[in-house]
Amino acid sequence: MRAITIPVPGGPEALVPTDRPDPTPSRGEVRVRVRAAGVNRADLLQRMGRYPAPADAPQDIPGLEYAGVVDALGEGVTELAVGDRVFGLVPGGAYAERITVHARGAARLPDGLTFVEGGAIPEAFITAYDAMVTQAGLAAGERVLVQAAGSGVGTAALQIARAIGATAIGTARTAAKLERARGLGLSHGVVAQGGAFAQGVLAATGGQGADVVLELVGGQYVAEDLGCVAPLGRIILVGMLAGGSVELDLGALLRRRVTLRGTVLRSRPLEERLVAMQAFSRHLVPLFESGALRPVVDRVFPLERAADAHAYVATNDGFGKVVLELPG
Amino acid sequence: MRAITIPVPGGPEALVPTDRPDPTPSRGEVRVRVRAAGVNRADLLQRMGRYPAPADAPQDIPGLEYAGVVDALGEGVTELAVGDRVFGLVPGGAYAERITVHARGAARLPDGLTFVEGGAIPEAFITAYDAMVTQAGLAAGERVLVQAAGSGVGTAALQIARAIGATAIGTARTAAKLERARGLGLSHGVVAQGGAFAQGVLAATGGQGADVVLELVGGQYVAEDLGCVAPLGRIILVGMLAGGSVELDLGALLRRRVTLRGTVLRSRPLEERLVAMQAFSRHLVPLFESGALRPVVDRVFPLERAADAHAYVATNDGFGKVVLELPG
Repeated sequence: MRAITIPVPGGPEALVPTDRPDPTPSRGEVRVRVRAAGVNRADLLQRMGRYPAPADAPQDIPGLEYAGVVDALGEGVTELAVGDRVFGLVPGGAYAERITVHARGAARLPDGLTFVEGGAIPEAFITAYDAMVTQAGLAAGERVLVQAAGSGVGTAALQIARAIGATAIGTARTAAKLERARGLGLSHGVVAQGGAFAQGVLAATGGQGADVVLELVGGQYVAEDLGCVAPLGRIILVGMLAGGSVELDLGALLRRRVTLRGTVLRSRPLEERLVAMQAFSRHLVPLFESGALRPVVDRVFPLERAADAHAYVATNDGFGKVVLELPG
Repeated sequence: MRAITIPVPGGPEALVPTDRPDPTPSRGEVRVRVRAAGVNRADLLQRMGRYPAPADAPQDIPGLEYAGVVDALGEGVTELAVGDRVFGLVPGGAYAERITVHARGAARLPDGLTFVEGGAIPEAFITAYDAMVTQAGLAAGERVLVQAAGSGVGTAALQIARAIGATAIGTARTAAKLERARGLGLSHGVVAQGGAFAQGVLAATGGQGADVVLELVGGQYVAEDLGCVAPLGRIILVGMLAGGSVELDLGALLRRRVTLRGTVLRSRPLEERLVAMQAFSRHLVPLFESGALRPVVDRVFPLERAADAHAYVATNDGFGKVVLELPG
């Protein structure tokens, strides 16, 4: 099969199309003919050698999500059949024509979605749902602050918040991104100028602050979050593009009884990934079927042009997801 | 009635014995003839004017816990009768001969405990249980790091950990305090020299780290906690004697999926205080009846000598609780 590999870490040109033997599904697994694979910022870090693959993932083929068709079954698989359209999250290996995944970790792709749409969904929507709802407990009537509202995870979070009855406030670096985010459920946008947004969030919430913060930026943003989080608020840290260190006001954390939690999907052990995929099938796939959620696809590149896709993601100019497409 | 008041904030001498009218129990409340009241560090802060009483508490009478006898019932009270021995947590007002409390917020004092013992229990044990178990989810087989293991909350936490099947590691400023803590369930003691303890905790846990940290010290301790907390660990911040600010490694928080939460009991609204008191009655009082838990009483002062009690607490030389006693 054709796959994109990283023989030596480096810039986008480090992504090299290669021929590899087809993988064989083990007991409980299915093999998927990949038709689309989303590009994630974690892939860029992996390509640069700064985010090695977990031990149970292909070591030199990136790709954390896929949509495709089941083309072989391992022993003991009863959940799926050859020909089923599926999509899901993997710890690596999706930049390839074929991938093996655990049958409990593959969700059925709704009929109304194309493969490209399916490949744009799992990482963003599972990250947003797992962080914002499963872990931070966002519920109807609450307010969530979504940082980087125009990102893949941000655009997913806005839609999920709207779908479950919560109000979404969002930040972005430009007013144009916030304007586009309005159609996805954003009710108040705050341009984060020089990393300052707490006053804007307080103004947008009548001084009450956000019950949940989906923190995709990190660094100094976390200190600013503490300035606009409501009592009993939950700040969930998913990314730290702005830096890995912050001076924190413990007094505010204590008085307002705030929770700050860090989370990451990729390094989780198999059973936790399967739990997250089952939650995805149960809670989000029906909302894609009903049309309450839809992926935001920014650009599509053929698999062989993965390097161009990476270069585009690195510009930070996009809105939504970048997807690699493979022929059927 | 006789009460200790704070006419003007200041040193221990700011505590002034005064005569006040007896309070009258409202609907759902009982009046308690106080026989003992624990002294807490929060009382010292309140006396200094740095921690004002919540709006629904007596504004100038400190005291967050009591043991005594019900001596009058408000309308509609069916849970308790005049003469019942009770103890519990209040947002203030316990440094007095009488106090009114909600009937759902008064626990029955077991026969085997004296009033002084009862007055030493609620704040320390409810703080430790609420933070360590209810909020941080400490469970059998896990390891908890108890900071300031010789403090009132620390000595309570060690015993609770042992009673629920968890292993307690503790820090203190002196080896002598750790030695005394062994009898309460401490399995590994680490002298926190210059605020360094992470290496000692890692050594005591075979490099695994603590699943839960009960953080009573704050400041730089929180950064050190991050150096010895296990994956999926929970750090619960209850006090910040060592300072209210810290430089935090967000990368460690994210990679290990750590939760840092601040909590405080005193400012909680009535319904939350009643929930905490019901958890106390349900989960801890039976363990005092069985002897699995016991209060650690350091010194006892008569109510009129509250100033001396405060001066003693401020030395940090104690081990366990300081209690004010009142005649029957």
